[in-house]
Amino acid sequence: MTPDESKRAAAVAALLELPESGTLGLGTGSTARLFIEEVGTLVKSGRRFRAVPTSEASRVQAEALGIEVLPPEGPWDIDVTVDGADEVDERLDLIKGGGGAHLREKIVNFASRRNIIIVDESKLSPKLGTKWKVPVEVVAFAQRSTAKHLAAFGDPILRIRGGVPFRTDSGNVIYDVACGPILDAAALDRSMRGVPGVVETGLFIGRADVVLVAGDDGVRRLAPRA
Amino acid sequence: MTPDESKRAAAVAALLELPESGTLGLGTGSTARLFIEEVGTLVKSGRRFRAVPTSEASRVQAEALGIEVLPPEGPWDIDVTVDGADEVDERLDLIKGGGGAHLREKIVNFASRRNIIIVDESKLSPKLGTKWKVPVEVVAFAQRSTAKHLAAFGDPILRIRGGVPFRTDSGNVIYDVACGPILDAAALDRSMRGVPGVVETGLFIGRADVVLVAGDDGVRRLAPRA
Repeated sequence: MTPDESKRAAAVAALLELPESGTLGLGTGSTARLFIEEVGTLVKSGRRFRAVPTSEASRVQAEALGIEVLPPEGPWDIDVTVDGADEVDERLDLIKGGGGAHLREKIVNFASRRNIIIVDESKLSPKLGTKWKVPVEVVAFAQRSTAKHLAAFGDPILRIRGGVPFRTDSGNVIYDVACGPILDAAALDRSMRGVPGVVETGLFIGRADVVLVAGDDGVRRLAPRA
Repeated sequence: MTPDESKRAAAVAALLELPESGTLGLGTGSTARLFIEEVGTLVKSGRRFRAVPTSEASRVQAEALGIEVLPPEGPWDIDVTVDGADEVDERLDLIKGGGGAHLREKIVNFASRRNIIIVDESKLSPKLGTKWKVPVEVVAFAQRSTAKHLAAFGDPILRIRGGVPFRTDSGNVIYDVACGPILDAAALDRSMRGVPGVVETGLFIGRADVVLVAGDDGVRRLAPRA
């Protein structure tokens, strides 16, 4: 399968994880985008879903497909959230935030009863940090001071788009921290959160109930060991 | 002394803690405002100070007094920060954020080699949480879901000003959480920070090098036990 075919296969497999009707969290990124398309098709066929999008991009897509979107301030009662990931380790811990949406993605993840992650094989990794830097959303005020603190964990690189610092939907900037392979992701997450000015890290520890992995042999369904 | 006289006495006492010249962090609030006035007088008399203000209000005041203000993105090399507090316990841990500036105040505190807190006697408390709620700065997106998580620690009350939700300098909202007397403030701070959507709490644990307390008998100088 091409990468796009793999992403589509994972997105379609996620439909089997949905309730008959209810509230869905909608992720952000190229794989989540395909899933949202599939949900739009279900809604057109009469299934009743309401949605909480994790980015302005996903909100616009969902509304264009006729999916009812709930107010951004919450509170919500989310049955299932389906989202992608940038790196998945053997414990099903995740690095997310390549698309710059990990703050809202993590909030929605925590507000959701179940979380389904859809990826292709290329995202699997023995240890987080092997393939990706850790995205860290940082308040713009004092961002260079905050980056100095983050340097304790790896080289922090300010994310640039179109020649200027990338701004998140919440108006913050992102530093991608080159940590290398991470021995204790939960401890790293806690330490980074302890730095004033850090809004959220892209480390998702123990937050995936199911990971659907699309590869040449079809879609594998992984769940954490109890 | 009247409360205003006490605040002035503490602000003047803080001048003795300053280096001959250098970079100062400027707090926010009624006591910090008096300190900034005093710094303005020093600068007019020829002392060379540069400043990092912790709010737009303090920045405007400092600039009007002719104090050089450093760029908001940092990084800075701050010698001393002088700031107020809403509640101070016997360990010199603090609750701050009544003025809505505790995010920037905490960032500047962590970027400062020394931190001087100026208060009047009314701010002293045997245990944090006895007199004040804990201000928690929260991302506007999903704020009502985030508040549901914060309810585990006490009743979260959305801060309202002029009939609408108060917005911080960073565009977030504030929930004042009625925790009651806090047994372990460091643990509470960590737990609240673990909630996605929480940007910063008003708990400052181990972050005061000196507390100057103005009372009827003058200004007492408190420092944490080693």
